[in-house]
Amino acid sequence: MNIVLLSGGSGKRLWPLSNEIRSKQFIKLFKKDSGGYESMVQRVYRQIREADAQATVTIATSKTQVSAIRNQLAEDVGISIEPCRRDTFPAIALATAYLADVEKLGKDEVVIVCPVDPYVDHTYFEALKRLEELAGRGEANLVLMGIEPTYPSEKYGYIIPQTSGETSLVKTFKEKPDAATAERYIREGALWNGGVFAYKLGYVLKKAHELLDFADYRDLYAKYETLKKISFDYAVVEKEPRIQVMRFAGQWKDLGTWNTLTEEMSEPTIGQALQNDTCKGVSIINELNLPVLCMGVKNLIVAASPEGILVSDKEQSSYIKPYVDRLNPGVKFAEKSWGNFEILDEEEESLTIKVTLNPGHAMNYHSHEHRDEVWTVLSGTGRALVDGAEQKIHAGDVVRMPAGSRHRVAADTELTLIEVQTGQINVHDKRKYDNV
Amino acid sequence: MNIVLLSGGSGKRLWPLSNEIRSKQFIKLFKKDSGGYESMVQRVYRQIREADAQATVTIATSKTQVSAIRNQLAEDVGISIEPCRRDTFPAIALATAYLADVEKLGKDEVVIVCPVDPYVDHTYFEALKRLEELAGRGEANLVLMGIEPTYPSEKYGYIIPQTSGETSLVKTFKEKPDAATAERYIREGALWNGGVFAYKLGYVLKKAHELLDFADYRDLYAKYETLKKISFDYAVVEKEPRIQVMRFAGQWKDLGTWNTLTEEMSEPTIGQALQNDTCKGVSIINELNLPVLCMGVKNLIVAASPEGILVSDKEQSSYIKPYVDRLNPGVKFAEKSWGNFEILDEEEESLTIKVTLNPGHAMNYHSHEHRDEVWTVLSGTGRALVDGAEQKIHAGDVVRMPAGSRHRVAADTELTLIEVQTGQINVHDKRKYDNV
Repeated sequence: MNIVLLSGGSGKRLWPLSNEIRSKQFIKLFKKDSGGYESMVQRVYRQIREADAQATVTIATSKTQVSAIRNQLAEDVGISIEPCRRDTFPAIALATAYLADVEKLGKDEVVIVCPVDPYVDHTYFEALKRLEELAGRGEANLVLMGIEPTYPSEKYGYIIPQTSGETSLVKTFKEKPDAATAERYIREGALWNGGVFAYKLGYVLKKAHELLDFADYRDLYAKYETLKKISFDYAVVEKEPRIQVMRFAGQWKDLGTWNTLTEEMSEPTIGQALQNDTCKGVSIINELNLPVLCMGVKNLIVAASPEGILVSDKEQSSYIKPYVDRLNPGVKFAEKSWGNFEILDEEEESLTIKVTLNPGHAMNYHSHEHRDEVWTVLSGTGRALVDGAEQKIHAGDVVRMPAGSRHRVAADTELTLIEVQTGQINVHDKRKYDNV
Repeated sequence: MNIVLLSGGSGKRLWPLSNEIRSKQFIKLFKKDSGGYESMVQRVYRQIREADAQATVTIATSKTQVSAIRNQLAEDVGISIEPCRRDTFPAIALATAYLADVEKLGKDEVVIVCPVDPYVDHTYFEALKRLEELAGRGEANLVLMGIEPTYPSEKYGYIIPQTSGETSLVKTFKEKPDAATAERYIREGALWNGGVFAYKLGYVLKKAHELLDFADYRDLYAKYETLKKISFDYAVVEKEPRIQVMRFAGQWKDLGTWNTLTEEMSEPTIGQALQNDTCKGVSIINELNLPVLCMGVKNLIVAASPEGILVSDKEQSSYIKPYVDRLNPGVKFAEKSWGNFEILDEEEESLTIKVTLNPGHAMNYHSHEHRDEVWTVLSGTGRALVDGAEQKIHAGDVVRMPAGSRHRVAADTELTLIEVQTGQINVHDKRKYDNV
């Protein structure tokens, strides 16, 4: 299978565990059989590999997520990077051009597009194989997955099929309805549009060339910022007469809110937490290095990260977005391609950060104009490069980087260090240099 | 007035804001008119000074609280330090000997003893003056404050007066009763015993010499560990025939649990916090540098400190103690005589601490056998002394202290620094030296 996973969203709905640079699909919430936890993107990638070890997986995403993807997934995953957000049609066009020009797929190969975040089991991946097969037959230009509704949701668009067979041509599409209309649609045999579909590569490439002026993948990438925002539904689906839909009745859940997400957690707590026996229906997800104690509370979500603490009634949790906007918390931690960092302390003219570098990884060579930095190594071994001079470092070593000095650190083993910044702190005060 | 404030307790009931070394009386929860917050001990000390600017105030407390008291109160407060806990009779005997031998009070001077933690207003201090006056007359050897009960509490001992006058001789004392018995006592005119009483210094000193074998304050201090644990009630009160009680009907509240404490908070939140409009009866006390968001919750306490996060139904919060014992959290922050510290990060072989020194203060000169330490200055100015060599320090400076080196830092202005410890971390690995 050739699968394009659309990975979007800034994920304020799952604050404080998601933030501007960590979307919900990167939060490690699902217990692995092997121990530890995996994120949505790790879970779906593992599931694809289990269904088809040979699958070509490409993540279509924005620049901001690339570090997190490189951190969480295997090295061989393809990434089609959107230089900026331009809605789904340009994104799918870019990913398709990437598959044609970088991955060298032929025009008759089938591509399956699906969002990265639904919570599904193996039946979903079996259905994707069937979707691929249907698209390969060429009876239609697009084959959509139609999900059997489990309740009259107002969150999804609906697909009205011509017949009630396992596959059918599509009669029409309906926008997100109110609950009463949704009930009527369902009585008439409508299916949820989960944004899962398959096509032959040449079809979307042709559509892309019709609507966008570009030569190849590199060219499209270069002019991406100049493209108009337009959805794939509007640009392609609504104008295409030959669309099939394939029914899917297996597990498919959109874990977009704390309420739906905690339903799929296999344990009531993740991280350091204790509940007394008068608690009921309490889910605790604690990423801080301090314990959470809950007493006498019911139907509650407690989520804690370096960015904040949420204490919410489960139902109320779906209304979180405007409050997170009001809090406007800064980014306090992030996963990067080379490891991760966490801000431990923030004062007006200083910043203290714990930095973890993965073995074999290094930061970019860079300098700052208006701040001094000091690294004190906590554990591991590596090499620090300051103004061209390299030194080996290990626990207890100190590296001083006065303002203006070029510096970089590379990890031989997993390397943790405390970085203290003093002076005028500004994220934009960073000049990068070619690695030496 | 000569006031002895008994300051005890390890304060697990107000976890995570109280801990083994910060008792509840040191938590800054009460809004000051001048802005900012004050603790119970700061509040009562300020109230005493307002009632009597000339009062001699002595805090009777254990070693572990001395740093916090020095940090929170004026320099001139007297401290009678109990080398270890030996219940109230040895503590009051020691404090009385301290007043006689260190503060040079005469035998006829009246001493008022009261706990440090009740929440009271100015009427209480007016009553203390009246208590002093009554004790000075010498009609009785002890004059107790009898607090008019506001409900049939099972938490207090009761005093049964002979008459219902403003002052009366005491008929008898009753142990903490059940609620039904308490109701009966109250119908019979009983008063709460809040542990507030006055006596002439010579009286308790005589009792002390009768029961304990010691020469003077220094001698009693030196042999304190050999004393038997015995309460003042058992050793003195129950055996004394001439005891008066004085009624007090003013404000007197024991803020021993989150539930009672939050009732006296003048605002629903302290620290970074946001509640949506579906919250009701929610109190948030947040000492962390990250926001708390509450949504759709009712009658809840959320308390957060570097030691942990409590989310509790208000009523349930009084049952907290066994759960805190189970969590067994380490001490993550403390107020010291020279300033304060907070542990930012803890790994197996490293510890990262933010240290704040008050202007004009210094740590003791000390060394560690098995760990290296590095200071990086965040702000302020001061002087670091390492193996006899002194250097001036300011923001961005780094001081390295390899294992074995003697070191100390003194603050000229408020000085904040990050201390990174690497090696074998053990609180007992500390050798102190005389300051040079």
